[in-house]
Amino acid sequence: MDDSREAALALDAADPLAGCRDLVTYADDVIYLDGNSLGRRPVSTPGALEDLVERQWARDLIRSWPAWLADATATADLLGEAVLGVAPGQVAISDSTTVNLYKLAVAAVRARPGRSRVVIEADAFPTDLYVIDGVARDHGLEVTRVEADIDDGVRATDLAAVLDDDVALVCLSHVGYRSGALLDMVELTRLAHDAGALVLWDLCHSAGSAPTPLAESGADLAVGCTYKYLNAGPGAPAFLYVRADLQAELRSPIQGWFGQRDQFEMAPEYDPVPGIERFLAGTPNVPGIVAVREGVRTIAAAGLPALRDKGVALTSYLVDLADVWLQPLGFRLASPRDPARRGSHVTLEHPQAWQACQAWIAAGVVPDFRTPDRLRIGPAPLTTSFEEIWIALDRLRDIVATGRHLEFPTERARVT
Amino acid sequence: MDDSREAALALDAADPLAGCRDLVTYADDVIYLDGNSLGRRPVSTPGALEDLVERQWARDLIRSWPAWLADATATADLLGEAVLGVAPGQVAISDSTTVNLYKLAVAAVRARPGRSRVVIEADAFPTDLYVIDGVARDHGLEVTRVEADIDDGVRATDLAAVLDDDVALVCLSHVGYRSGALLDMVELTRLAHDAGALVLWDLCHSAGSAPTPLAESGADLAVGCTYKYLNAGPGAPAFLYVRADLQAELRSPIQGWFGQRDQFEMAPEYDPVPGIERFLAGTPNVPGIVAVREGVRTIAAAGLPALRDKGVALTSYLVDLADVWLQPLGFRLASPRDPARRGSHVTLEHPQAWQACQAWIAAGVVPDFRTPDRLRIGPAPLTTSFEEIWIALDRLRDIVATGRHLEFPTERARVT
Repeated sequence: MDDSREAALALDAADPLAGCRDLVTYADDVIYLDGNSLGRRPVSTPGALEDLVERQWARDLIRSWPAWLADATATADLLGEAVLGVAPGQVAISDSTTVNLYKLAVAAVRARPGRSRVVIEADAFPTDLYVIDGVARDHGLEVTRVEADIDDGVRATDLAAVLDDDVALVCLSHVGYRSGALLDMVELTRLAHDAGALVLWDLCHSAGSAPTPLAESGADLAVGCTYKYLNAGPGAPAFLYVRADLQAELRSPIQGWFGQRDQFEMAPEYDPVPGIERFLAGTPNVPGIVAVREGVRTIAAAGLPALRDKGVALTSYLVDLADVWLQPLGFRLASPRDPARRGSHVTLEHPQAWQACQAWIAAGVVPDFRTPDRLRIGPAPLTTSFEEIWIALDRLRDIVATGRHLEFPTERARVT
Repeated sequence: MDDSREAALALDAADPLAGCRDLVTYADDVIYLDGNSLGRRPVSTPGALEDLVERQWARDLIRSWPAWLADATATADLLGEAVLGVAPGQVAISDSTTVNLYKLAVAAVRARPGRSRVVIEADAFPTDLYVIDGVARDHGLEVTRVEADIDDGVRATDLAAVLDDDVALVCLSHVGYRSGALLDMVELTRLAHDAGALVLWDLCHSAGSAPTPLAESGADLAVGCTYKYLNAGPGAPAFLYVRADLQAELRSPIQGWFGQRDQFEMAPEYDPVPGIERFLAGTPNVPGIVAVREGVRTIAAAGLPALRDKGVALTSYLVDLADVWLQPLGFRLASPRDPARRGSHVTLEHPQAWQACQAWIAAGVVPDFRTPDRLRIGPAPLTTSFEEIWIALDRLRDIVATGRHLEFPTERARVT
């Protein structure tokens, strides 16, 4: 490969999404490689929030509710269409990923009575592991954790080996939070369905950076967050997906008034609406929905196929540079090497990863660290340039080659 | 009573909280009597949100997380101290009221195994009825609904009559959403505790307008929203309270990573923190917490005792005017007449309430309607003047006396 800075600049010059960089704000002076944790802020978000706060809330007060409710539905459908590729009426924006995962997992296991197991990948995001463990315990079910391979993610053969007609639910991450492995949603969903199980996909690390073949795969359920590649800001509300034909048979355990038929009749008995809104619980987070709308619009403007191409190009370039510059310094690729099996982030393992992480931050680069020894590098397809990757990795090789990272603490301080 | 406009102006001139009106924005041209549904916007909120969106998110990106987490804890403790009168470490800001109610109700019934009933007031807010019904069904429990009296709310004798050592949980609203009845938290909590039950208080309609004697009563659990009297905006995150000595024995059914000990160690097994954060689930709604902080500061600036005095004065004045002007037109008070038993809203019953509501709105007043025949009038102690009440009720008597309301539809359009 050509590891010159000029080659990076040439890739940027040929980038069809280069214009999309103007959709977000670069008020920072760092190289930001954490788009997979918190996406940048769209240029349009401050104005949209100002309109909400100055006009809709301060002036129109409760008279804004009909517009807010209509916007919640429209934003959910836009997210469904532009990000998830699904028809309207199957996506709701609500709560957090954790709460949505809980609601759908409970609904799913109750829809498969008599089955005694839930399957989840062993390296699922912690909140997925915790929620599924709790749901299983509360319903007297066993949990089977499937190990994933760094290069292949959860292999079809490994999943097939634990599936039988005792499995109620399979919970998988479309892109692994640690490894970046992109699973074959079509193939794995088919295996689960062959066993009669429902499948719940966690799309947190793929939504907005890779196509999610929910429709093609016939996947049953999905959840995901909006503050990573969807650029909706810290703690923005999450989304959930329930395939249209399944909605009537599934019920949320949290029987909230926003899922109630003719909600403002305020009837004393719970009677959920037939559609996707039955999975809503309490009053929607209106500023959060506005931020989701603006964030989803950035993704819709670029288009998922182009974003996926860019993501593959960025991570492939990163892996190539890492092979040449970092492997000799003790770094090992801890993500799939095949770009078709990889989401939009790349993880590098190094015995002094935590020290390298701190030194890298001190040198003006913002990566992510994952226990015990991983640097997680998340360029955002919409906003990261090839040159930024070149500069960032150049700084990292310089740090580790000169041993500057060894001046940083080996122990991590507690974040909370 | 003196029903002249001059008398109203004299009350305003003597109002010790008159200066607090400057804490919120009046960008609307209406008389707003729906502070019990969506509070006004604090003057400070736009600047606080702008700092969040422009600096903390757009520039500092993920480096803001430590400050955001610290702010979440500080805001929860401020809400606890200034609004609920409880010591730090017992309040969390998270999710919606519905989700918090679910988490605490499940935790409570599991902490009282062997007991087979849950008690709730029959006129509880619908989401409370729905959630409790679901939680009871999922745990094989029966629900007993206690009727409330319009003047007294839930009477101690009526509650006592349904309590025995089979009751796991009693769920009550401190202020009834429809009647405005303010229950005696100390007395009713004592009755429930005498039967060995836990008590969960819904504070939605009292928090920020009346003192909540959680500490004096020894109440176990509470939830409430922040978008009414706490002025945190549409769909702002809710709060929950768990008495310190109970926290270790209660567990949230939603085992989320924000309740996990040493969260960023990302251990594969759930192990909740010992404190109040064990009731958190997913990533906190950061803009929502900022808005709660600014809203709670408006309440803290005025002080709960002064707000309660003002609320009593406003509703008493409203009731007095209604007696003189509206009772002769067929209106009946559907709230407690004794101000000591009343929260900060007043409900009037009228056979043509829906038509009167529409005509009142057309005349520049924003009230609330509650099925089947009630006008719910919610002056906010912090922001409503006596003159506004005078003008609003003057318009209403004029509408109904002249029959103008009869020109409006009798059927309600569906809101959603």
